[in-house]
Amino acid sequence: MLGNFTYSNPTKLYFGEDSLKSLNEELPKYGERVLLVYGGGSIKKNGIYDQVIRILADNGKTVSEVPGVMPNPTVEKLYEGCRIAKENQVDLILAVGGGSCCDYAKAVSVSTYCEEDPWEKYFARMEDVDNPVIPVGCVLTMVGTGSEMNGGSVITNHEAKMKIGHIFGDNVFPKFSILNPAYTFTLPEYQMVAGFYDIMNHITEQYFSGTDDNTSDYIMEGLLKSLIHSSRIAKKDPANYEARSNIMWIATWALNTLVACGKTTDWMVHMIGQAIGAHTNATHGMTLSAVSMAYYRHICPYGLAKFRRFAINVWDVNPEGKTDAEVAEEGLKRMEDYMNELGLVMNIKELGVTEDMLEQVADSTILFQTDYKPLTRDDVIRILRASM
Amino acid sequence: MLGNFTYSNPTKLYFGEDSLKSLNEELPKYGERVLLVYGGGSIKKNGIYDQVIRILADNGKTVSEVPGVMPNPTVEKLYEGCRIAKENQVDLILAVGGGSCCDYAKAVSVSTYCEEDPWEKYFARMEDVDNPVIPVGCVLTMVGTGSEMNGGSVITNHEAKMKIGHIFGDNVFPKFSILNPAYTFTLPEYQMVAGFYDIMNHITEQYFSGTDDNTSDYIMEGLLKSLIHSSRIAKKDPANYEARSNIMWIATWALNTLVACGKTTDWMVHMIGQAIGAHTNATHGMTLSAVSMAYYRHICPYGLAKFRRFAINVWDVNPEGKTDAEVAEEGLKRMEDYMNELGLVMNIKELGVTEDMLEQVADSTILFQTDYKPLTRDDVIRILRASM
Repeated sequence: MLGNFTYSNPTKLYFGEDSLKSLNEELPKYGERVLLVYGGGSIKKNGIYDQVIRILADNGKTVSEVPGVMPNPTVEKLYEGCRIAKENQVDLILAVGGGSCCDYAKAVSVSTYCEEDPWEKYFARMEDVDNPVIPVGCVLTMVGTGSEMNGGSVITNHEAKMKIGHIFGDNVFPKFSILNPAYTFTLPEYQMVAGFYDIMNHITEQYFSGTDDNTSDYIMEGLLKSLIHSSRIAKKDPANYEARSNIMWIATWALNTLVACGKTTDWMVHMIGQAIGAHTNATHGMTLSAVSMAYYRHICPYGLAKFRRFAINVWDVNPEGKTDAEVAEEGLKRMEDYMNELGLVMNIKELGVTEDMLEQVADSTILFQTDYKPLTRDDVIRILRASM
Repeated sequence: MLGNFTYSNPTKLYFGEDSLKSLNEELPKYGERVLLVYGGGSIKKNGIYDQVIRILADNGKTVSEVPGVMPNPTVEKLYEGCRIAKENQVDLILAVGGGSCCDYAKAVSVSTYCEEDPWEKYFARMEDVDNPVIPVGCVLTMVGTGSEMNGGSVITNHEAKMKIGHIFGDNVFPKFSILNPAYTFTLPEYQMVAGFYDIMNHITEQYFSGTDDNTSDYIMEGLLKSLIHSSRIAKKDPANYEARSNIMWIATWALNTLVACGKTTDWMVHMIGQAIGAHTNATHGMTLSAVSMAYYRHICPYGLAKFRRFAINVWDVNPEGKTDAEVAEEGLKRMEDYMNELGLVMNIKELGVTEDMLEQVADSTILFQTDYKPLTRDDVIRILRASM
């Protein structure tokens, strides 16, 4: 059953090989001062930076910059961006990069005119935004997070050992996002496959919850099957436009609020993964892959019907002559094989987690009231140990 | 492959049993003068009219009305609505009804300030809108058309024997739509199942085109499976909230532009069905069901791979030991069985089409450049004859 909900997604998307030129349609809608935020400089090597700067100049914009946005944007970097945005009274924040850049742009957007410490207000306490927000636009160069069409923003506080995501309302969604699948071709394989698993996990986090018959589950099964198919092609042939364009589109719809409409969700793999990220600074998607199998095997007996359905509808397991538990486990085994095939990190040791860190990681894990099996701190430690 | 496209859908949806009260959130955003458009009066019997009028009064609105919007809204009715909207200088058009009411509201929205004959400009010539549009909101009481979240509007001109749909841009999309599945419970079975097939056909019109591997096709397979499942339940138990809520949600996503992103589409069942509607005034969904099997069997050999995929992924046909054509036909046969099970009209005689009308219906059929098998006028006559 679909519970009651409101759906609104105002982000305009420009998708395709020529989509960067759409900046010319969007820029005139905003004032003259643009804050350009980007990461480690790969956009300078591949020429995207120069193209963006030229379009900004053609549109008469005054540009200030925040370069060096790191994969897990920190609270110190957030403060720096807010200072620059305020000093320059920027009218638009343009993120050019992956999910971290988009997340960061949204964090700066809501935090610049926040009258108290934005980490405390918007991340630690997750309060509603009640100050002016600066409009955000995105040019996406990596896929996975879905940040290009949602209100999510994840910020890491290394001192507090916390990595916290806040899902803001639709006034914080990017006003527009530009998606060119070809921009994703040059990403190193490790980051590429980590992004693929981030997408898959966004879907399974929302799928493995609830027992109702729900159209959202059917949509997610379709997205998963398309993702499995295209990611296998992209692993072998990263410059396959067909596969990369499908993956880019799946990433957007996996986490732009649609598939969560009218249903409960889980998100505990992300909560444990983010805690690992806060302690190790490991690549986000790999923190998810490393704990997923232990987590899903832990909750499977409590959501058996859904895990059985997952095995049959997503992994084509033939249920004949098997118990529900056997069918469910065969589905999880096929998922595990697929993850190994992609080359994902399948244990947390490889991410730098040591035995003596487990208690601290568990302390950093936010516990949600999930549907199948609400976790205790002890459960988290058990899952972490099984992921070593 | 996903071709280049732009996606933008600004309609805000309020979904669920209490969603009507969301009118209180939306109404303050618009001026004082509201034009209420509705159909034959069922909303007066079931109390929805009184509830809406009360909320409009509570929000201090001055209300003018266009009652009697018919199932296939006519050009004469359009002129009447434009006159009333102009005389009352309305700030918002509120449609309360099914797809015809929503379509009609959008037609009045673009036509009221059109300086020439809006039928000629926006339907016969399908020109872009270059005059002010009046904002539209919808309270949906029937599902099928998807009109609550798109820019489509179909108007019938009985004199010209033409029924033409124009897909307007996102400035014509409803600003908000209120979707309460319980409002759909009391619809007579004939209209209910016609709506179910309208939804299915919206999906298949977009599915049966293209040979590329495309995420949109996977999403459509998910929507179709959910629709088949829930419509079988609703046929037996029309007040089943779970089934009706899923169907309402599928209808919206079947035709709000998402599944067409990056792919070619077909739409010839709708073109032939609309021509039949122009000559008979038959229920829209039944004009589609009556010609579908003949049409799909006509184009199947030219899009065999997709029809094979449809059979396997949507209708669970086992392909082992069968030719592609056999697999494809088995899928179409299961679809035909399902349509008979719902009680759809499966021939055009039952809709009032006689042998001597076939030439004229063919003349009223707009021929699109479709992908698998572009139709000639002779093909249309052949399909009509096979549908007798």
